[in-house]
Amino acid sequence: MPSQRREHMVMGAYVSYGTGHHAASWRHPASDTTATRNLGHYVEVTRLAEQHLFDTLFLSDAPAVFNDDRAGFGGRVTFFEPLTLMSALAMVSQDIGLVATSSTTYKEPYNLAREYASLDIISEGRAAWNLVTTSKQAAARNLGLPSHPAHAERYRRANEFIDIVQGLWDTWEDDAFPADKAKGRFYDPAKRHELRHRGSVFSLDAELNVSRPPQGHPVIVQAGSSEAGRELAARTAEMVFTAQPDLESALVFAKDLDRRASRYARLNPDVIILPGLTVYAGTTEKEAREKVEELQSLIRPEFGLSMLSDLVGGFDLSSCDIEGPLPRLPPSNANTSRRALIERLAYDEGLNVRQLYERMTTSRGHMTLIGSYDAVTDEIVRWFESGAADGFNIMPPLLPESLGDFSENILPRLRHRGVFKRRYRPGTLREKLGLRRPENRYVTQNVTTSEGEHHHAR
Amino acid sequence: MPSQRREHMVMGAYVSYGTGHHAASWRHPASDTTATRNLGHYVEVTRLAEQHLFDTLFLSDAPAVFNDDRAGFGGRVTFFEPLTLMSALAMVSQDIGLVATSSTTYKEPYNLAREYASLDIISEGRAAWNLVTTSKQAAARNLGLPSHPAHAERYRRANEFIDIVQGLWDTWEDDAFPADKAKGRFYDPAKRHELRHRGSVFSLDAELNVSRPPQGHPVIVQAGSSEAGRELAARTAEMVFTAQPDLESALVFAKDLDRRASRYARLNPDVIILPGLTVYAGTTEKEAREKVEELQSLIRPEFGLSMLSDLVGGFDLSSCDIEGPLPRLPPSNANTSRRALIERLAYDEGLNVRQLYERMTTSRGHMTLIGSYDAVTDEIVRWFESGAADGFNIMPPLLPESLGDFSENILPRLRHRGVFKRRYRPGTLREKLGLRRPENRYVTQNVTTSEGEHHHAR
Repeated sequence: MPSQRREHMVMGAYVSYGTGHHAASWRHPASDTTATRNLGHYVEVTRLAEQHLFDTLFLSDAPAVFNDDRAGFGGRVTFFEPLTLMSALAMVSQDIGLVATSSTTYKEPYNLAREYASLDIISEGRAAWNLVTTSKQAAARNLGLPSHPAHAERYRRANEFIDIVQGLWDTWEDDAFPADKAKGRFYDPAKRHELRHRGSVFSLDAELNVSRPPQGHPVIVQAGSSEAGRELAARTAEMVFTAQPDLESALVFAKDLDRRASRYARLNPDVIILPGLTVYAGTTEKEAREKVEELQSLIRPEFGLSMLSDLVGGFDLSSCDIEGPLPRLPPSNANTSRRALIERLAYDEGLNVRQLYERMTTSRGHMTLIGSYDAVTDEIVRWFESGAADGFNIMPPLLPESLGDFSENILPRLRHRGVFKRRYRPGTLREKLGLRRPENRYVTQNVTTSEGEHHHAR
Repeated sequence: MPSQRREHMVMGAYVSYGTGHHAASWRHPASDTTATRNLGHYVEVTRLAEQHLFDTLFLSDAPAVFNDDRAGFGGRVTFFEPLTLMSALAMVSQDIGLVATSSTTYKEPYNLAREYASLDIISEGRAAWNLVTTSKQAAARNLGLPSHPAHAERYRRANEFIDIVQGLWDTWEDDAFPADKAKGRFYDPAKRHELRHRGSVFSLDAELNVSRPPQGHPVIVQAGSSEAGRELAARTAEMVFTAQPDLESALVFAKDLDRRASRYARLNPDVIILPGLTVYAGTTEKEAREKVEELQSLIRPEFGLSMLSDLVGGFDLSSCDIEGPLPRLPPSNANTSRRALIERLAYDEGLNVRQLYERMTTSRGHMTLIGSYDAVTDEIVRWFESGAADGFNIMPPLLPESLGDFSENILPRLRHRGVFKRRYRPGTLREKLGLRRPENRYVTQNVTTSEGEHHHAR
């Protein structure tokens, strides 16, 4: 069993879902039902997360209506566009990392490279891009594609896409702008570089019109857990967000990812592994269970079924008997890893349809811990110390309440155990996380000091 | 001659170019040469513009390196991506409208509709989209298109593009979210609408995943002055940004646009016409001329030539004799109206190459007023009262200095003359400008009160 991978846990606050990750959270008496379109709500959540030293704020995304039931039950159908929201939230925060999700299938590399470079400048080096290939069929209809591209095709595009984006971020060297007023020379043409890319998906000669980001490259995050997803993560991701339902599978995942990454000469701590984690905790286990039950009681069965339909790839399950088994499903090209989990729970562990959707409404396949504050703390420490995780992307069931509860009751216990920090480290998100700053590919020689300062020699 | 079109002038602050609109402004002793990548600079400019009651902040854009000379003379080669910058600036302002430019040729309607809807929510109803088709050849290389699409093709796409974007903004009716916690119904499925578009460029069935923007639709701005550009503006634009070198041509333009707009049943004040305006003013005309000379002396001839090359469509003029005439140019599919202006100045008015680039470095073909504060004020009032303009998009040669100078010396004079406001009107940008809020196309009947409140009846 591998041992603890780093001194302190990395803690993310995954806050996309307005009123919280539980699918019925919007019905909770404490919820602000305008949360998904209320900037004030996000400002409050951001300040809360930063006050408690979360490393990152995480926003998921897809170019399609979310959690789509078509009957009006789902509380997160609309949402802010994540780059604009993150740019606004950058203005009310100083230290927290800003992880926004964007799809390589439904955007263009040039536009995306600009947006993240700009966010990195706006936030003074706190931008991160969670690269996804998008698993929603509706995205193709929205964008006018004949069909949602197959999984292999999406990953072929994603692999070229990220190479282009990272190449574009190197268009201008860090010191390309001497801005010599006396001589009238603003930039040094020798420090401007055109990216020439010839691939099977993209062919372009491009120069970014944004200066090199403060971090060199915004931090690369990935969430794909399929074979192609893991391989792309191993090659390029610096943070991997993953759904692992238990410690055993998380250890297998971490070991597999480390092995793949080492083939690209990338070693821990080059890749930070963050499983998603939903916590229901209280002074006693009974109190924690009551928090779960309070939210579970708010799920209408019709909504549970439609959410499950969506998660397995858009097949209509509305006529299922909720107390019966999950029917066998036809093949799909949507999110393969989550569907595989649902099928395993249904066919191998024998969960019925109601149990499946209840499991999914709490955490959508991510680990869920239910127990006393002490017991939850123990389990989190166990994952961290075993090397199954470098930290967690916390998915609060109810926002901002559950985030506050976790911050005030679990984080102090983790700090007491010596695995969570007492203050932010100075500098950019990379510097805070201990990730190296990528050298510009066009600079032929360089010396990097251990303090993270960079000296370029040509 | 038409008379004054509205009570107060609409005043825009066009602030894209970092250190200012004059091409050599970055060499001025007062300039911050990091301005194009310095958020603090933009925060300062935004606060200055809002303090002086400018109606809009205006950011131009193209997906390519700007003012490109390749020799290092140009001071604005890199820049913030405008949607992320505007979202950040929304957080440090309360009243000023936020006009960001985006290209219909190099973006997708779904992504763009999301971004502007999100900015509109973030800014509480202050977003505006300046629709351009992009005239930079380099954009095609950056995005990987085989070539920059021809003018007619760009406008065919633009016409469908805006219809899709406006349709997407109507996906959710204003009151689509009753969020009934007791019944568990978050949204009303009858108030959710799929856009079905079948055109020669786009074919899609789409639903936006952002709620209806506070303004219904962000304000539509356009800057094209070609035949196709005017026709698109007449059909869809609520604000037209135009380059008019003198009052006579501005009057012809306004009359032409009014005539075209009336064919779409759109009448003044549905369309606000804002010519660009560069002002060099001082207590005396001599002082104003010194301000011009100070900046003109900073232009290197090599840079003047390369800027002119860029403006006429990318033809290399570097071997021209600057004291000689402009050579005849081969056809181009770039910005036709600006090129026509340059050709007119060269071939009809006989300006030599140096005179051409000097004219362009100060204002890129927009009106330039040089004179005492009183004389400049008189001329601005004359344009406004003659009906040639509803106001101006002010292009400060030097930022923030020229914006401050205009604000402190010209605006008080305009206020004294009764043509500029004393305070912001309350409400969204539409309400401040007196533009009607578009009804949702899927709402069959409606009653709008004169106070701008909206009552929907089905």
